[in-house]
Amino acid sequence: MSTAAPLTGSKQAGHAENADVLEGLRLTPLLRDLDESVLQKLAAISHMVDHAEDIEICRQDEIADQLFIVVNGQLAGFTTAATGMTAVVEVIRAGETLGLATILARLPWLMGVRTVERSRLLCIDAEGLLTLVEQEPPLVTALLRAEANEFRALVRQVCDLKLRTTAQRLGCYLLSLSAEQQANTTAMRLPFDKRLLAARLGCRQENLSRAFAALRGFGVETHGARVILHDIAKLKAYAEPDQAFA
Amino acid sequence: MSTAAPLTGSKQAGHAENADVLEGLRLTPLLRDLDESVLQKLAAISHMVDHAEDIEICRQDEIADQLFIVVNGQLAGFTTAATGMTAVVEVIRAGETLGLATILARLPWLMGVRTVERSRLLCIDAEGLLTLVEQEPPLVTALLRAEANEFRALVRQVCDLKLRTTAQRLGCYLLSLSAEQQANTTAMRLPFDKRLLAARLGCRQENLSRAFAALRGFGVETHGARVILHDIAKLKAYAEPDQAFA
Repeated sequence: MSTAAPLTGSKQAGHAENADVLEGLRLTPLLRDLDESVLQKLAAISHMVDHAEDIEICRQDEIADQLFIVVNGQLAGFTTAATGMTAVVEVIRAGETLGLATILARLPWLMGVRTVERSRLLCIDAEGLLTLVEQEPPLVTALLRAEANEFRALVRQVCDLKLRTTAQRLGCYLLSLSAEQQANTTAMRLPFDKRLLAARLGCRQENLSRAFAALRGFGVETHGARVILHDIAKLKAYAEPDQAFA
Repeated sequence: MSTAAPLTGSKQAGHAENADVLEGLRLTPLLRDLDESVLQKLAAISHMVDHAEDIEICRQDEIADQLFIVVNGQLAGFTTAATGMTAVVEVIRAGETLGLATILARLPWLMGVRTVERSRLLCIDAEGLLTLVEQEPPLVTALLRAEANEFRALVRQVCDLKLRTTAQRLGCYLLSLSAEQQANTTAMRLPFDKRLLAARLGCRQENLSRAFAALRGFGVETHGARVILHDIAKLKAYAEPDQAFA
């Protein structure tokens, strides 16, 4: 584990990077309804950073001074208990944010955040964002909607953890990775390693292995990170993914 | 189970009720930093409602058109899966809100909401609130902070569910109910029945009974809803409540 050391990018960037930032903002789903003038103002308080794999982006209990939007790559948010035990709260992907409510309320980070893989992040200055929020009501709407998405993802997890077995949670997770809309079979790669997957699902690694074994009877074949779903309908019937949240 | 039918209170209320609403707003912790003029504007779009026990306040998937602040009593937010299984996402008490992010983003309710006991609620019209947000920047700050509190409670639950056994979760929950700061013993009443407690902790009722039995060795004595903690220090050492979220 290493601490944050951006590969490229800094606040003192030139015109090329500024265009890059503006393009990143334009491509961010949560900002898509904003006028060009608001995006320009956001660009002025943002910069782009590239991080290597497994880099600490921010530390639990520190005041959040930046909003991160994942441009590509993945971030994991985790909490460490007094006992040293760590729970992975959430893993987020391109276009998503983490801890927006915490940032906007100027509270200390609830979670530590690390890169899961090499990642490009849009970093928006929190103070600048709060100032801009007061000037640009449409930005409030966009941010509230992004917060609602984060909230929804957590509610979904709470329900998942309360209602489903580990094998069902793993099944739901694999189904969520599948882009397959029509056919009954699909192949995919796990987007991160099994240690992190176990932590995200809230189980020990040996239970994850048992869950993969249990899913074999529902057409789930694994070779390391490669996973084949041979019978999506059967897996759905077993794991019972929640359509309301799909 | 019955649907919402307020015991008293309506939008067409007189001066007495208006004073009541204003007083309720003044006593709400999340609004305490707001000027009297903002509270007056909030009062104009709010009303107070009393509901009996186990009344449906809103239904999953319906558009959220009111923000509820609990004045007294308790509300439970729950989701029902396609299979009919129900998870209690959260139980909230006086001064707390539920689903604020959803309301402010004008999305459908993620959860159904019911009263756990006889409850008095401040109901703020969602459209009016959104309009007021654009006029009163200090209100934005208050609402963002309330959202952050809701978010924090869910993150805490996710960690709890991922890191702790049912008996530890029950121990943490009992410790959270204890107002005792100094002594090593305390007595309390469970604020709701064991069926709801099991659903909130995310376990079956028989597992809750086993968890209570397991906690006997850590000084937890129960007689129905009455609970005595004989050795808070020992219970803390076992359940490992997270100080960061306390």
